[in-house]
Amino acid sequence: MVTGIIGATGYAGAELVRLLSVHPKVVKMLLCSVSFEGKGIEDIYPNFLGRISGALLKADDVIAGSDVVFAGLPHGVGEPYARTCRDKGIHYIDLSADFRFDDDEAAFNAWYGKNYAHPELHKNSVYGLPELNRKRIRELAAAGSVIVGNPGCYPTCASLGVFPALVKGLAADKATIIVDAASGITGGGREPTRSFHYPECADSITPYKVGEHRHTPEIARNFAAMAALGGNTAPALIFTPHLAPMNRGILSTIYIPLAEAWRVPPADQKTVRPPSKEIGTKTQTIRDLYSDFYKGEPFVRVLPAGLFASTNRVRQSNYCDISVHMDQTGSTLIITSAIDNMVKGAAGQAVQNLNVILGIDETSGLETVPALF
Amino acid sequence: MVTGIIGATGYAGAELVRLLSVHPKVVKMLLCSVSFEGKGIEDIYPNFLGRISGALLKADDVIAGSDVVFAGLPHGVGEPYARTCRDKGIHYIDLSADFRFDDDEAAFNAWYGKNYAHPELHKNSVYGLPELNRKRIRELAAAGSVIVGNPGCYPTCASLGVFPALVKGLAADKATIIVDAASGITGGGREPTRSFHYPECADSITPYKVGEHRHTPEIARNFAAMAALGGNTAPALIFTPHLAPMNRGILSTIYIPLAEAWRVPPADQKTVRPPSKEIGTKTQTIRDLYSDFYKGEPFVRVLPAGLFASTNRVRQSNYCDISVHMDQTGSTLIITSAIDNMVKGAAGQAVQNLNVILGIDETSGLETVPALF
Amino acid sequence: MVTGIIGATGYAGAELVRLLSVHPKVVKMLLCSVSFEGKGIEDIYPNFLGRISGALLKADDVIAGSDVVFAGLPHGVGEPYARTCRDKGIHYIDLSADFRFDDDEAAFNAWYGKNYAHPELHKNSVYGLPELNRKRIRELAAAGSVIVGNPGCYPTCASLGVFPALVKGLAADKATIIVDAASGITGGGREPTRSFHYPECADSITPYKVGEHRHTPEIARNFAAMAALGGNTAPALIFTPHLAPMNRGILSTIYIPLAEAWRVPPADQKTVRPPSKEIGTKTQTIRDLYSDFYKGEPFVRVLPAGLFASTNRVRQSNYCDISVHMDQTGSTLIITSAIDNMVKGAAGQAVQNLNVILGIDETSGLETVPALF
Amino acid sequence: MVTGIIGATGYAGAELVRLLSVHPKVVKMLLCSVSFEGKGIEDIYPNFLGRISGALLKADDVIAGSDVVFAGLPHGVGEPYARTCRDKGIHYIDLSADFRFDDDEAAFNAWYGKNYAHPELHKNSVYGLPELNRKRIRELAAAGSVIVGNPGCYPTCASLGVFPALVKGLAADKATIIVDAASGITGGGREPTRSFHYPECADSITPYKVGEHRHTPEIARNFAAMAALGGNTAPALIFTPHLAPMNRGILSTIYIPLAEAWRVPPADQKTVRPPSKEIGTKTQTIRDLYSDFYKGEPFVRVLPAGLFASTNRVRQSNYCDISVHMDQTGSTLIITSAIDNMVKGAAGQAVQNLNVILGIDETSGLETVPALF
Repeated sequence: MVTGIIGATGYAGAELVRLLSVHPKVVKMLLCSVSFEGKGIEDIYPNFLGRISGALLKADDVIAGSDVVFAGLPHGVGEPYARTCRDKGIHYIDLSADFRFDDDEAAFNAWYGKNYAHPELHKNSVYGLPELNRKRIRELAAAGSVIVGNPGCYPTCASLGVFPALVKGLAADKATIIVDAASGITGGGREPTRSFHYPECADSITPYKVGEHRHTPEIARNFAAMAALGGNTAPALIFTPHLAPMNRGILSTIYIPLAEAWRVPPADQKTVRPPSKEIGTKTQTIRDLYSDFYKGEPFVRVLPAGLFASTNRVRQSNYCDISVHMDQTGSTLIITSAIDNMVKGAAGQAVQNLNVILGIDETSGLETVPALF
Repeated sequence: MVTGIIGATGYAGAELVRLLSVHPKVVKMLLCSVSFEGKGIEDIYPNFLGRISGALLKADDVIAGSDVVFAGLPHGVGEPYARTCRDKGIHYIDLSADFRFDDDEAAFNAWYGKNYAHPELHKNSVYGLPELNRKRIRELAAAGSVIVGNPGCYPTCASLGVFPALVKGLAADKATIIVDAASGITGGGREPTRSFHYPECADSITPYKVGEHRHTPEIARNFAAMAALGGNTAPALIFTPHLAPMNRGILSTIYIPLAEAWRVPPADQKTVRPPSKEIGTKTQTIRDLYSDFYKGEPFVRVLPAGLFASTNRVRQSNYCDISVHMDQTGSTLIITSAIDNMVKGAAGQAVQNLNVILGIDETSGLETVPALF
Repeated sequence: MVTGIIGATGYAGAELVRLLSVHPKVVKMLLCSVSFEGKGIEDIYPNFLGRISGALLKADDVIAGSDVVFAGLPHGVGEPYARTCRDKGIHYIDLSADFRFDDDEAAFNAWYGKNYAHPELHKNSVYGLPELNRKRIRELAAAGSVIVGNPGCYPTCASLGVFPALVKGLAADKATIIVDAASGITGGGREPTRSFHYPECADSITPYKVGEHRHTPEIARNFAAMAALGGNTAPALIFTPHLAPMNRGILSTIYIPLAEAWRVPPADQKTVRPPSKEIGTKTQTIRDLYSDFYKGEPFVRVLPAGLFASTNRVRQSNYCDISVHMDQTGSTLIITSAIDNMVKGAAGQAVQNLNVILGIDETSGLETVPALF
Repeated sequence: MVTGIIGATGYAGAELVRLLSVHPKVVKMLLCSVSFEGKGIEDIYPNFLGRISGALLKADDVIAGSDVVFAGLPHGVGEPYARTCRDKGIHYIDLSADFRFDDDEAAFNAWYGKNYAHPELHKNSVYGLPELNRKRIRELAAAGSVIVGNPGCYPTCASLGVFPALVKGLAADKATIIVDAASGITGGGREPTRSFHYPECADSITPYKVGEHRHTPEIARNFAAMAALGGNTAPALIFTPHLAPMNRGILSTIYIPLAEAWRVPPADQKTVRPPSKEIGTKTQTIRDLYSDFYKGEPFVRVLPAGLFASTNRVRQSNYCDISVHMDQTGSTLIITSAIDNMVKGAAGQAVQNLNVILGIDETSGLETVPALF
């Protein structure tokens, strides 16, 4: 199989190139970079020397020779490529936000400030979170070519963290779910800016875009879809991203107000006390429920009691680690989930989507065992 | 003035030694370390070479020669020293949790597993958050000697973040406030352990003690006291600490459900939209309220719109930076606050308490302008 | 093939487990850890959850069931295991210093303070730097079972950096070669100590064991062996290790005084001037010589002009990147070389040695393309 | 005293602003920034909020109102300001390379590619390394106004490391001294570029500009001047800079071939052995010589045996820490020296120069005790 990668020199694109270079089904890659056309990928990423080489071509030439096309482009420029791929019957996996909202053009417009140029494409595209939409991806692929909107990094991490709770009705009706998350600095992309200049972000943590990050509607949409699967109402969402001084990784700490039946009210309401034994028991019940829910998933690991999600344990892998807790008042489920933002949060998930499309083992090319350090 | 420091070789103790070494009122320091008795402080901290020297003495000898005694000790061992100081009429500032709960022995016992050996001392001790208890500290000092329970790092950061909101009644009645916080690794102290071994915590973020961190009751107690000052009910608290790969600093992101009057419900309930102009306006009103509330405080900086609290901007200083935001649904006040955990979160605040006791400018010895990098 | 790993829970051992878990010839691993016998490897390294599990056994049970045994043990305890393996005809690859000095017991004794318990084993063991001893490893393996002394991290990085220069006689006769190197903190191992406690080594660089690091005799020995291959005299060695605030990687900057014929004396001896064009030309000649020398090596990359060795470009891979330079006076060859200390500097090289022993492609199981970040 | 700072928003300029803001003789600062004219310094550095404010003015207005002017500008633009200051009888301290070469225009031209526009200024300017030129600075200041060329960061660290050795004739005649140094990333300045983009330099170490860094001639010049003070010949120099993943600090590891009289040849030439007792003794003699040489210097600390220079022990301070060692063959003196590149390597040294000019205690405004973390 020949895979084309448009936007191959951005961080997500380069990670995709790296992962696909050892994918068992990929015999050739065609790479496109507007910024570096004519150079070789190994000139831009000398870490690839001796392993991956290839001239950076025009997009048209890449599409023309490919069986599947990935795009790691800025938001708002992907539709024409998708249109071309669809016309040629080529699968198209887009890592930007352009195909994450299906036919909800209003949401896309409200947060990204653009309208759809090709609304018809969005009627048959699919949001590529395999744990949620695996079946739909397969169906579309089987029916011809598929356009996949590969999920954002924060949405992937947050959505997998709440999926079982929302389906199983653990959340209170009309609950407001808070997602407090931190990302490594590769999340900001390859372009040097002050925010990501080493001396200004090293050894420090800070929030950003509080109450107004573009991943908010994508997360909310996933939450609603997941709740609906269990016949539950959509929760409200508050999402706060932070920048942490590390290269890779996203950690989400998620607060889900529990439905009455799942709460463990403290015996003594007057003093703040450590979690009771009952809280421990109920938390384990929920943890078991999570484990059971995800038992067939190759990339979701529900951690045993005593462990917390930690970004170093998923580094360079496609895993999403999830830990399950409850606050000391027994009112709120606290989920922590961790992914590598460049892998499960971007390029790895795109490869997973490719595997779903091809109908092969979803772990193909994603066998890296995370190394801790 | 001669100041004694018991536990001078722990991180908080050493930071105290460093700060007091340039304090205008301190003519001499007497240092105690059980672990390193007989050595010099500069043997343990060669960064002090040429600037601070002094044999590490027995605690009794330190107390005997001091006008004020600080203790940077593990929890549960400070009471005998406090008793001796009180008997001698010496001010005693304790950086452990031993005097943070006043006469609420039940809370101390529930979370620290110990009872008070000297309950009488806790009737006349004071929780040393100057912004909250400045007057009481002065009164006790004026009346003789004072025992100060210097606040924990997380409680300082969280409490200053919510203080105006709770006094002014911005929070919904019986709201559950969520404090999601991250600390630098000096917070774990000087003793090498696996959690703080460089290869296991560098380049990674992780939560810990979810739902059961000992600072929970201290924060809750502060929140209740602050709400009471404004005639408001005590909120419930959920507190989640994280470990971030940085040396110093605490960042708190705090979610306060707003009282009806302060909310800005979205016009369109169906789609998640970016924050409205009305939300911006109301947020600025609250920001102004915060600025006004803290206008006399030398160490609290309410940031202008557009800035977020960031630990690097307070590094090595006694500042607490606070930024004010609202979520896009207009239901929740989001506060971010940042301190240096070793300064405002420990040693600097102890010096500030000393200054309050002495009735001198609270910034004495705390003039460091933070450096960003 | 069943591979046994003794000392599986140390950092080098765990990295070996991780690499072998995806090695095409390894069907089973038997793991031994004295410290954690009875537990599972995934209890100690939860990053392995869902991928690698296995009870930690006694060493005897591991050896009994294995076709090849690796040992990631402290120095000085490996000989009995080697003895047992030899008796059973099992290949034994030792990651400690125990088999790095062949029959030069004096050097081992001088620097490690121990004598050989089984001198006979060292007569038929081989120092496992494949680029130097590939042929000998194969011969011993073909002749029965082989004992491999897997090289130290610093020696690997330094030796590959000077190999062509010494063979080709670029170095001045009896030159003193200076190896100035920096290691990431995983080099210190898994045991928490003050030197590797995050707050004491983060955001800082420092030398250690100046003039007395144990890798000195190993490096010197390699240099002598390499020079001898070209009929040249052994150089003297000065080696200075540093600790850099990063997880993985070793960078060596190596100063080799050039033989007369290779020098480019400046026209103007009086003023320090930037490198002349002639220096550039001669440097390229040497760079080409390096490229040519290493052209068959799967894991050595000689960088083109303009690039410097950088640890992030080899992270998690078995590569050794080498760049070639000359100082502005044209008297000294400056080589920089970079490896991942845990891979080419330890576990990866051990796997490469396994591949040499098996006579399969040396890159088997070592296909990771480094990721830059 | 009113101090003017031109180039106040660069990193060195901002650090100068920070240090001068607490200097006892500075009653007012006038700040200039071409990039941000009209804004306030606290808009660019919000870490200054509540402590330092001041509109960013035109250079002419700054000079007109100042008693002393500092310039933190790019190389090659400082002469006109110096000319104006000289005309007005105002002291001028330049942090760029423009006045570091005195009347050696050839060297400046060779490495910076510019000629002097005002050669006459360089006849009465002084290289501001107080440990070397304190007397000359005072003389020029006493004679009217002085132009100080504030040293580069690497040259400061390296020169202080070799000063006693060169004056006292420890180095072999015509020795080649190797300075292998690593800098924190603030050394690259405030402008975001790929080299200093967090994901491309974090968790990694790399050399740069090997054999051709502009600080080479400055270091060589200092070495020659120091050797001449002791009647010794100028050594040759090889200088290699590295970029280490930390905010602040420079560490130099310096190799000085010893004069015959200072060597300690090993008894046994055949085997590489650990350093002999004689080496230890002779090293201590040299260490004592260093301590004695620097005993009056307020900012140079010669470390006792057993300690190595480490950048964290000088962080945010004006100290230069030096440790003294010898290699195991007894042929080479190995010095390690550490400074904070932004303080002793730039802004702090400029303040020290101000203090020298004013004839006050050189530690004025530079009292920060380094904090280790």
